[in-house]
Amino acid sequence: MTARFNVAIGELQNRFGAALSTNLTIRQQHAHTMTWLDNEPADAVLTVASKEDVADAVKICHAHGMPIIAFGMGSSLEGQLNAPHGGLCIDMSQMNAILQVNGEDLTATVQAGVTREALNQYLRDTGLFFPIDPGANATIGGMVATRASGTNAVRYGTMKDVVLSLEVVMPDGEIIRTASRAKKSSAGYDLTRLIIGSEGTLGIVTEITVKLFGLPECIGSGICHFPNVDMACQAVMATIQMCLPIARIELLDATQIKACNAYSGLSLKESATLLVEFHGTNAGVAEQVELFGQIIADFDGQNFVWDTDENKRKQLWMARHNAYHASRALRPTASGLSTDACVPISRLAECVTKTVEDIQTCGMLGSVVGHVGDGNFHVLLLVDLNDEREVIHAKQILSRLAERAIDMDGTCTGEHGVGQGKRQYMAKEHGGALAVMKAIKSAIDPKNIMNPDKIWQ
Amino acid sequence: MTARFNVAIGELQNRFGAALSTNLTIRQQHAHTMTWLDNEPADAVLTVASKEDVADAVKICHAHGMPIIAFGMGSSLEGQLNAPHGGLCIDMSQMNAILQVNGEDLTATVQAGVTREALNQYLRDTGLFFPIDPGANATIGGMVATRASGTNAVRYGTMKDVVLSLEVVMPDGEIIRTASRAKKSSAGYDLTRLIIGSEGTLGIVTEITVKLFGLPECIGSGICHFPNVDMACQAVMATIQMCLPIARIELLDATQIKACNAYSGLSLKESATLLVEFHGTNAGVAEQVELFGQIIADFDGQNFVWDTDENKRKQLWMARHNAYHASRALRPTASGLSTDACVPISRLAECVTKTVEDIQTCGMLGSVVGHVGDGNFHVLLLVDLNDEREVIHAKQILSRLAERAIDMDGTCTGEHGVGQGKRQYMAKEHGGALAVMKAIKSAIDPKNIMNPDKIWQ
Repeated sequence: MTARFNVAIGELQNRFGAALSTNLTIRQQHAHTMTWLDNEPADAVLTVASKEDVADAVKICHAHGMPIIAFGMGSSLEGQLNAPHGGLCIDMSQMNAILQVNGEDLTATVQAGVTREALNQYLRDTGLFFPIDPGANATIGGMVATRASGTNAVRYGTMKDVVLSLEVVMPDGEIIRTASRAKKSSAGYDLTRLIIGSEGTLGIVTEITVKLFGLPECIGSGICHFPNVDMACQAVMATIQMCLPIARIELLDATQIKACNAYSGLSLKESATLLVEFHGTNAGVAEQVELFGQIIADFDGQNFVWDTDENKRKQLWMARHNAYHASRALRPTASGLSTDACVPISRLAECVTKTVEDIQTCGMLGSVVGHVGDGNFHVLLLVDLNDEREVIHAKQILSRLAERAIDMDGTCTGEHGVGQGKRQYMAKEHGGALAVMKAIKSAIDPKNIMNPDKIWQ
Repeated sequence: MTARFNVAIGELQNRFGAALSTNLTIRQQHAHTMTWLDNEPADAVLTVASKEDVADAVKICHAHGMPIIAFGMGSSLEGQLNAPHGGLCIDMSQMNAILQVNGEDLTATVQAGVTREALNQYLRDTGLFFPIDPGANATIGGMVATRASGTNAVRYGTMKDVVLSLEVVMPDGEIIRTASRAKKSSAGYDLTRLIIGSEGTLGIVTEITVKLFGLPECIGSGICHFPNVDMACQAVMATIQMCLPIARIELLDATQIKACNAYSGLSLKESATLLVEFHGTNAGVAEQVELFGQIIADFDGQNFVWDTDENKRKQLWMARHNAYHASRALRPTASGLSTDACVPISRLAECVTKTVEDIQTCGMLGSVVGHVGDGNFHVLLLVDLNDEREVIHAKQILSRLAERAIDMDGTCTGEHGVGQGKRQYMAKEHGGALAVMKAIKSAIDPKNIMNPDKIWQ
C-alpha cells in the first residue's frame, strides 16, 4: 500500500471501520481485470450501504484531494476502474435495494448497485421489464456510467433513453437529483444525460429512476443466413428503412458461427448470420415475420426459421448467447480482447468487411458480432499476450478500427465507453468539442478527484 | 437605441453592412412578443447566412462582452428572446438550407433556420417524416433550444430523442460538433443533450442532424368523450400501461370543446374528450383501435369514432387544430396566456382537476389541452391585461400550477422552456442541481454573453 493518502485513509477508517479494506487482493479485484490494460489498484476499497456513506466518503476524499473510483460489478472493458493515481474505490454493490416500482408510470427507482438481472427478476410478476442488456450482468449504476446498451437497443434505446432521473453525489459531497419523474421536461440543462456516459468523472450515481416497458404478448425469434457480411448488412439496412419495429437484430460472422458450432454442438451454416427477435401482439409478430422474410429474400437470405415457443427461441439464440465463450474456445490459451465501434448504418457493411479483412491480412484470429440494427458491432480478437508480434498486430487492428469508424462519421465506441483504452481517439473524434468537455469537468470537479485520467488524460 | 455597445455595433456594421439593422421596429419584432412579459429589444438585429457569419458575429460580441440572443421564428412563449441587457439578436431564419437527407440512415442534416414544416414538405416524396410538432411552425434550431416536443412525443419522443448531432458556435466563436452520425455512442460527455434545452445560453446552434421516421402505412384517428377529466386521464393511464403504441393522445376539457364547437361550428359533446391517433400497418391499426375501444369502455368512454380516411381524420382533429384560436374567441378582447406543466402520469388527473378547480374558484376563464400520454398539459388563460385583479389572479394560478406540478414530482414546464417566465421556480424544482447548471454555464460562457438572465437570473 502506498503512503499517498494515509491521513485520508485514517479518517475513512474512523468513519467506516471494517467496511474499508486496504487488502491488496481486494484492491486488485476492484481494479481493471479485463483485457490487456495493467491492473492499477486504488489505495483502499470502501463498501458503502447508503447515499450518506457515499457523501461522507466523498467529503473526506475531497478534503484530501484523494481520487475516487466507483465500482459496480467490475465488468467494464476499457480500464474504467483503474486507479492510476491511487485513491479510494467505492464499491456500490451492496447498495442493491429496489426502492420503488411504479406500475402506473412504468418507472422503477433503484440503488446504483442493483444489477439488471436482479431488477428483471424483481419485476417478473408485474408484466413489465427493463430492456437494456449489455453482455454482463452489470449494475444499473455502472450502465449509467458507460451509457450502456445491448441487443434490445434497436427497439428500446440505450441508457440515455430509458433513464428519467439520477441521484448523484457530487465531488464536494453534495447530493443532487438531476430531474423529476416527469416523462419530459424543458426546465433547465439536461444533467441526467450529462452524467450518463461520464464514466464516474463528474460524480457518483447513487439512485436511478428508469423507464419500464410492458412484456410483449408475443415474442418471435428467428435465424437466417447470408452469402457474406455485406449482404447481411444490406438486409439489416432495408429492415430499418422499412421501419419494421424489430426488437433485436444481431449479426454473427462466419468465424463466429464456426466457433458456436464447435462450442455448442450446433450445425449452423457457417456463413454470415442474422438472429432476430420480434415483439408485439400475436398478429403483429406474424406480420413482422412475414415482412422480414420478404426483405431478406432480396439479399439472398436463406434458411429463415422462426418460432414463438420459448424453448425453441432459446435454442435459436444459443449461438448468440454463447458467442463470447465459443470464440474464446477457438483458442483457449489466448486472451480475448473485446472492442466495439458504431457507424451510420449505411457504412456498416463496409466497416465490418474492412475490419474482417484487416484481421485476416494480419494473420490474426477474431470474430465479429454486432447489434447491427444500430450500426454497432464488436470484434473479439484472440491474442497471445506473450507474443509481442501478436500484441502489436492486435493494437494496430483495434486502432485502425477506431479510426475507420470515426472516418465514417461514426464513433470509436458505441457502448463500452472510453476509460483508459480509447482516450487516444478522443481528439480525432471530438475536435474542439473535447475542450468543452474538459471545461465542464473542471467546473464540476475542480480538484479532479472523480475517476481522474479517464476519457482523456 | 442605447449607446451601450456602439463600438461593437460599428464593427458588426463594417463586417455585415445591410444585414445588420438597428431599426426599433425590427428590434422589437425580434424580442418577446407573446404573453405579458415586457418586450426588451436587443440593440441590433443581424440576419446571418452561414455558420461563418455566426462565428464572426460571436467573436465581435465576445470581444466586447455584448450579449447574443439567437432568433428563429419568434414563437417561444417564456420570454426567451428578450434582451434585458441589450446586445445582438442573431436572426437565423435565412439559414434555412436542408443540407443532406440520408434515407439509408434515416437522418437529415439541416441549418438551424429550417422550420419543421419546411423539412416535412421537403421530405414529402421520400416516405419519411420528422415527427416533432410543437404548436408553432418553429425552426428546428429553436426547437433544439427549448427541447420542444408536441402531440407525437408519446410515440416518437422529444427533441432530446430525435437529435443525433449538433454544430454549435461557442461563446468564443469556435465552431464545434457535438457528436457523429452514429446512432449511439459511449465516447465522452453528451454535449448534444446538454445543448438541447439550454435556450441559447451555451452557444448558437447552426446545424442539426435529426432522425427521420417512416410514414406509417396506415394512420387511424379517433375521438371519444368521458364524463370528466379524471375518467379521461384514467383511460390514458391504462392505455400507456397496456403499452399500446399510440401515436397521439390529446385531452381537451369541456371548456375547450365548448370553444371549439362555437368556433368551428361543430356539435361535439361538451365534456372531457380524447383525440387519438394510431400508426402502423392496416392490420396493426385495426388491432390498436380494438384494444383502445376495450380500454376506454372501462372508464365510461363514449361515442368512440375513428377513421383512416385522410379527410375524415382531419375533420376529427379539427377541434384540436383550432383549439388555440377557438379558446381565444371565447373572449376576443382578452389576451391568451399559455403555460404548460408535466407530471408523472399517475398524478395527471389530480393535477389537471385541481388546476381547473383553481381557475374556476378565481372566476377566471381558461381551457386545458394536453399531450396527456406524457403527463404534459397546457392551460390557456384568457386575461384582460388592463384589469389588475385579473392579472394578479392569472399570475397566482400559473404560479400555483407550477408549484403543484413540482410537488407531484413533475416539472413546471414540459416543453415551453423557462426563459424569463419560469426562472422563479428553478430553485424549488432543481435544488442543489441548479448550482451545477450555473457552474457549467460559467465554465462554457465565462463572460455570460449567451442569452444572459435566461433559465435563472
